[in-house]
Amino acid sequence: MNEKYPSKLLENAVDAISSLPGVGSRSALRLALHLLKQPKENVHHFTQAINMLSDEVRYCRECMMVSDEDMCSICSDDRRDHGTICVVGSVRDVMSIEATGQYKGVYHVLGGIISPINGIGPSDLTIRQLVERLQKMDCDDTEVILALSGDVEGETTSFYIYRQISPLGVRVSTLARGLGFGDDLEYADSLTLGRSIINRQIFKP
Amino acid sequence: MNEKYPSKLLENAVDAISSLPGVGSRSALRLALHLLKQPKENVHHFTQAINMLSDEVRYCRECMMVSDEDMCSICSDDRRDHGTICVVGSVRDVMSIEATGQYKGVYHVLGGIISPINGIGPSDLTIRQLVERLQKMDCDDTEVILALSGDVEGETTSFYIYRQISPLGVRVSTLARGLGFGDDLEYADSLTLGRSIINRQIFKP
Repeated sequence: MNEKYPSKLLENAVDAISSLPGVGSRSALRLALHLLKQPKENVHHFTQAINMLSDEVRYCRECMMVSDEDMCSICSDDRRDHGTICVVGSVRDVMSIEATGQYKGVYHVLGGIISPINGIGPSDLTIRQLVERLQKMDCDDTEVILALSGDVEGETTSFYIYRQISPLGVRVSTLARGLGFGDDLEYADSLTLGRSIINRQIFKP
Repeated sequence: MNEKYPSKLLENAVDAISSLPGVGSRSALRLALHLLKQPKENVHHFTQAINMLSDEVRYCRECMMVSDEDMCSICSDDRRDHGTICVVGSVRDVMSIEATGQYKGVYHVLGGIISPINGIGPSDLTIRQLVERLQKMDCDDTEVILALSGDVEGETTSFYIYRQISPLGVRVSTLARGLGFGDDLEYADSLTLGRSIINRQIFKP
């Protein structure tokens, strides 16, 4: 967009909004003009919610998940299986797994994935905290599920963590890979289909 | 999305962000987690730009456009034709017309379109200011171009304004409607195609 903004204030707001991922300058202008039409109190409420998130957010001391307390509601829940730790990249992954209702263990949030292209190395993640957490546990009775994405960066991160924690004697597992429910064989990529055949399971009708 | 947010702060931020038009709760969560990863200074810079737009914005006293000054750069430009006033719905329309480089007159920004469904009546727009502006001018030498959208609400608004300003003796025109450059006859709607035939022009190769 080559238009010149009629106001520096508007331009600054559009620049700020378009710094968000996936928001172009055209959408940013639309959002800025929307905010301009709102009562000031609503805009202040909007910016305050964002400032408070940034300023006052805390992380669970066990699993490093975003939390309002020193320990998150999952880690402080006695009914969860604290001997099973699911390692995920982000809070969103926790929310996705929780939404399935299938998992009763606890989590460990890495805060990202090892990605040299984006300048994210192992020390930027909470891998050290995971190791320290496991060292305090009875590792023979502990399972760590590496629930990272199936791309190269996810696999690299899984392998790195495996090397760090397997000496501790924990059982390390990973998510099942295979065809999704409803997937069509014809459109599955050959890597996924290959894994599905190798890891085939007994048919239980 | 049925996931429960692990933190009230996060939930508040997601709620605030998803109040923006066209941003669902899933995108809002993605944006909130993005902001959470940014340094606090960047987040404050982001929210400050939005607060300043809302708190300190001013409108040109001539054309009602967003402006940092008492009079906008277009209205204070002597090289523009001040006898031609293009009436548009929003600042975005000004920017679109300016981007064509074809228009040398000035503008009047209504701040919306008459839309009973959205509770926007004539008194919510700057129609009164337009009438007052014209009353101070030599109306015999003035042209008002109604550059509103071609839908029912735009047409209604155009008609309402026409009734208000035509007694003043100004010439009132409207944007040419017809096939766009590159448009295919086959896919043009019949209303547009019909207008294109009625308003056909001498072929000048």
